[in-house]
Amino acid sequence: MNQAYDDGYIYYPGLTAFPVTLGHEFAGEIIEVGSQAISKRTGKHYEIGDPVTVEEMAWCGECKPCCDGYPNHCERLQEVGFSIDGAFAEYITVPAKLCWSLRKLERNYDDVFKIGSLVEPTSVAFNAVIERGGGIRPGENVIILGAGPIGLASTKILKTAGAGLCIVSEPEEHRASLAKKMGADYVINPLKENFVEQVKEYTDNEGAALYLEATGLPQVVTDDIQNAIWECKAVNSTVVIVARAEQRMPVCGEFFQVKRARIVGAQGHSGHGTFFNVISSMAAGMDVTPMITKEISLEQVPENIKLLQTDKENCKISAIIN
Amino acid sequence: MNQAYDDGYIYYPGLTAFPVTLGHEFAGEIIEVGSQAISKRTGKHYEIGDPVTVEEMAWCGECKPCCDGYPNHCERLQEVGFSIDGAFAEYITVPAKLCWSLRKLERNYDDVFKIGSLVEPTSVAFNAVIERGGGIRPGENVIILGAGPIGLASTKILKTAGAGLCIVSEPEEHRASLAKKMGADYVINPLKENFVEQVKEYTDNEGAALYLEATGLPQVVTDDIQNAIWECKAVNSTVVIVARAEQRMPVCGEFFQVKRARIVGAQGHSGHGTFFNVISSMAAGMDVTPMITKEISLEQVPENIKLLQTDKENCKISAIIN
Amino acid sequence: MNQAYDDGYIYYPGLTAFPVTLGHEFAGEIIEVGSQAISKRTGKHYEIGDPVTVEEMAWCGECKPCCDGYPNHCERLQEVGFSIDGAFAEYITVPAKLCWSLRKLERNYDDVFKIGSLVEPTSVAFNAVIERGGGIRPGENVIILGAGPIGLASTKILKTAGAGLCIVSEPEEHRASLAKKMGADYVINPLKENFVEQVKEYTDNEGAALYLEATGLPQVVTDDIQNAIWECKAVNSTVVIVARAEQRMPVCGEFFQVKRARIVGAQGHSGHGTFFNVISSMAAGMDVTPMITKEISLEQVPENIKLLQTDKENCKISAIIN
Amino acid sequence: MNQAYDDGYIYYPGLTAFPVTLGHEFAGEIIEVGSQAISKRTGKHYEIGDPVTVEEMAWCGECKPCCDGYPNHCERLQEVGFSIDGAFAEYITVPAKLCWSLRKLERNYDDVFKIGSLVEPTSVAFNAVIERGGGIRPGENVIILGAGPIGLASTKILKTAGAGLCIVSEPEEHRASLAKKMGADYVINPLKENFVEQVKEYTDNEGAALYLEATGLPQVVTDDIQNAIWECKAVNSTVVIVARAEQRMPVCGEFFQVKRARIVGAQGHSGHGTFFNVISSMAAGMDVTPMITKEISLEQVPENIKLLQTDKENCKISAIIN
Repeated sequence: MNQAYDDGYIYYPGLTAFPVTLGHEFAGEIIEVGSQAISKRTGKHYEIGDPVTVEEMAWCGECKPCCDGYPNHCERLQEVGFSIDGAFAEYITVPAKLCWSLRKLERNYDDVFKIGSLVEPTSVAFNAVIERGGGIRPGENVIILGAGPIGLASTKILKTAGAGLCIVSEPEEHRASLAKKMGADYVINPLKENFVEQVKEYTDNEGAALYLEATGLPQVVTDDIQNAIWECKAVNSTVVIVARAEQRMPVCGEFFQVKRARIVGAQGHSGHGTFFNVISSMAAGMDVTPMITKEISLEQVPENIKLLQTDKENCKISAIIN
Repeated sequence: MNQAYDDGYIYYPGLTAFPVTLGHEFAGEIIEVGSQAISKRTGKHYEIGDPVTVEEMAWCGECKPCCDGYPNHCERLQEVGFSIDGAFAEYITVPAKLCWSLRKLERNYDDVFKIGSLVEPTSVAFNAVIERGGGIRPGENVIILGAGPIGLASTKILKTAGAGLCIVSEPEEHRASLAKKMGADYVINPLKENFVEQVKEYTDNEGAALYLEATGLPQVVTDDIQNAIWECKAVNSTVVIVARAEQRMPVCGEFFQVKRARIVGAQGHSGHGTFFNVISSMAAGMDVTPMITKEISLEQVPENIKLLQTDKENCKISAIIN
Repeated sequence: MNQAYDDGYIYYPGLTAFPVTLGHEFAGEIIEVGSQAISKRTGKHYEIGDPVTVEEMAWCGECKPCCDGYPNHCERLQEVGFSIDGAFAEYITVPAKLCWSLRKLERNYDDVFKIGSLVEPTSVAFNAVIERGGGIRPGENVIILGAGPIGLASTKILKTAGAGLCIVSEPEEHRASLAKKMGADYVINPLKENFVEQVKEYTDNEGAALYLEATGLPQVVTDDIQNAIWECKAVNSTVVIVARAEQRMPVCGEFFQVKRARIVGAQGHSGHGTFFNVISSMAAGMDVTPMITKEISLEQVPENIKLLQTDKENCKISAIIN
Repeated sequence: MNQAYDDGYIYYPGLTAFPVTLGHEFAGEIIEVGSQAISKRTGKHYEIGDPVTVEEMAWCGECKPCCDGYPNHCERLQEVGFSIDGAFAEYITVPAKLCWSLRKLERNYDDVFKIGSLVEPTSVAFNAVIERGGGIRPGENVIILGAGPIGLASTKILKTAGAGLCIVSEPEEHRASLAKKMGADYVINPLKENFVEQVKEYTDNEGAALYLEATGLPQVVTDDIQNAIWECKAVNSTVVIVARAEQRMPVCGEFFQVKRARIVGAQGHSGHGTFFNVISSMAAGMDVTPMITKEISLEQVPENIKLLQTDKENCKISAIIN
């Protein structure tokens, strides 16, 4: 979302029905409760003051993918902040079924709304590496290409899941430094270093169980990924594609045959208990707030959205609305 | 449902809110369509005349199990024919999301409603052996204890899935004969034969990948199952508990350790694409209609429900409503 | 193996240590037994006269992939008929651990050696679609691209596993006809028909749960596969790459994201109970002998190997050695 | 192993062929290398001085379970320290395929042999909770019954894997204190507290994704486990049975149906990459050495084995052999 085409338009691979109020990563307090608004935590009506965060994907619950348990692939999706009004506002109305309690974050966090606003992007990463990628066994190595928000959140999630070594590939210096803060054991600068050689050195030729493509540049990184798979010893590697891109990946099937590897596509954050597990992980210490590099007021949102088109130094900018 | 206590009451391990119209295994034609009633098959409104069958479980779609993809474990379940009006009637109103098209059965079946009325019980079996039991690899053996409707449907499903040998254990003669019709390779009469010895003989000591407890008598059959696991060679056996019972199973953990075995509980028929896959299987030739042993009119329903309390000769009795 | 380069050399993507005796798909009788040669079936020494077939992959059992349970990815593999002497001979010596009993085929087959010689190629297909592809749930559709031996065996295996519709894409007429014999519901001629449109029509826009690339022409068929995934409704499709090829596949990651799809590479036939399950499936009726289109004597082998370089009409040619 | 019957004999649920040298949890240096002794790490011969640990289970590699990838269920198992000579000795000869390099532990540990000697019991726990139990998604809760070595190692492993809350049930004070050191969030004393009520309180009625039976007293704890499953909200709980016991578990199938739960048996530590992943986890910081509560010399072994029959204060006692 923070990159515009040359003409100033954003590229977003989802639904939009502008004009709408933007804002899809947020947390807040319940201030009014509908007659059917039952809390998944208590099984009773939400109470005034309950802290919650909200799925951005307003899945219908009635199409075949929804009925089968795959709401990320809803055929009649609406998106909060894109096709229906979002959260850059003092109040927002959302379906109760999209809300998740932040109550258990009160154990560890002074400001549950700040970390709560990161549940959505962290859930996109969690869905990619845990749900679609199948997670890892403790001790297995992982390699993250791209240290944008999803790559960074994935780094934290996979270290939380017991990754042996987590190697991040990222040329941009501020992001590389964030990757270290989020738990990366090594950061490779693919513009200055040989990615495959570094992977071999850092992992003692073992390679990795999971590779995450989070750069959006598949035409650039596919060879790096599959050459690392080919030259290292690990079998059963999974490549998760989470970044959106129009370019093709020049996949060499034989590498995936010989190394028993696979490629999976990932999108979304809904279903599979993902929001719930992300919040529980945060409660247990998975602190992703280093991703927030700047805090602003509601009034400062428009100028900062503009700034994001060129600003590469910030990762997540949180608007605090009192 | 076809057994009453001595005092004439039925035992049903689910929700009831009598008085309601009974009838939860049914198929029929769409004759009126709500404004939100979208067909999962076409993505458009249902059309008058569309043939459909309906899930009995009216899951809420908003509690945590529903949101996570487990509608069989809905916390606010209603049940068609038990807590809301069922199908022993000329017309019935049901939520669109519970309906599944029978259109593809027109390829192979003259009467899509007759076989369509069996989608619900077949889906309970499918959920048990395929979804919860994890299915089988073609060639693996399976053993079904109890040849009631669920055991019989499971026999047909597992032979359809490529079971090597399917052995059914059933003392009652009519049911044993139905098991053969549904594809069982062997039927054991556990009152007259030694179950474990027969399993060893028929399978050349291999045992089975899947055992289905469909008798409702766990205190009687648990030892048979675990002794067969213990004495045969197969590792990785799965025991699926689908029949409801109050009695305890005297499980010997060591047998499950040494043989790498597991026990899973199964309930319900919703979610996981189950209704859809059952209908597709039927369209591809999985004909379970031998389970229907008698056809009656709507008027004959009350007397036949009474009869079922003592009648052991019939399996499924279909009421044809014109 | 039946295609030579223009210069007459074969292309084989495995180990060779010529000169060796060729022949890697075979069955025969035990005529002499080593002191450590224990039968997996009986747990005792093999007996003279036991009918067996043999894995072609002589995995070491001591490298990391072997110890982890992935013998198809053995680091010190030898191959029967390629790097060690094969079966175009009256007698062959093989490690006992590679042998699998054909005893249970005596139930259904007059000539257990004929069908036994097809266990190896059928196991390559089984490993691809069941082990690596994860199999299917009964009722799910499958699409096989290429009706060579692996495509044909996969057709039979997947129909045995309960495939709803099995569609085979194959331009060559004899092979198309064999596909029908092996159970294909529809055959598409991709040179004369629009693959994607035919898939949509035959499946009522559902698409398929599993696509098998068995043509060796990924540069040609990748777009067909991913366009079918994109335009049809099924989510969770798996693309299994079993044919070897040097060409790249132009994969569009977004299709795999939006449709929750994945690509897996498959090689080999060892481990995972595959030979055993293939033999059990054959015993239960999975007859793949229509693949044998010609029978010859041992003396006729050399001339027929030559013929195979141009002959497109035959599938498997069996040498009968008395 | 540290409990004797009243008559002084030990109870061990495996193979014994006494008299043999005891000692099955050990690490050491390579001092002589057989001609076939290839290192899984380098693919070359082991070198003098390589630090290794060794699987206790000498699986044959040729029976059906071994060929299928399940060496923990080898039909012709030998056991180091029980049926063949073990490690309470200055030198020991073992098959190369059972050895695993400790080289990567040199990164973090001064004494790689001390932690290396804990790879074996930690692998039993890893096999139970990760391989057989299927692991957890980060954030999910786990409950460990029994804080003996396997319960303690499982506590550490599951916290490493991102467990939300880890609750240990253990009446013995020293062990309870060790559980806290290994990462337990809460310890329940089941003799003084109501297990189910404490689980409900600590987890806000959520329950747990995984319960580990590591007490060996199934007749005592089965009801606690299944009542916690029944009264808490989580579906899909897995109960892993790792402790050996002769007593039956009074399993109530309905609880496992309604809560979509399952029971799996676990034994062994071989295969599935377990030793390798445990060593990698240790290298990444999973320090289980708090389990070692006493260090002794080789000469002190006999008296300490005797002491273990009554001593409840020690967990692991390490013999240091120079």
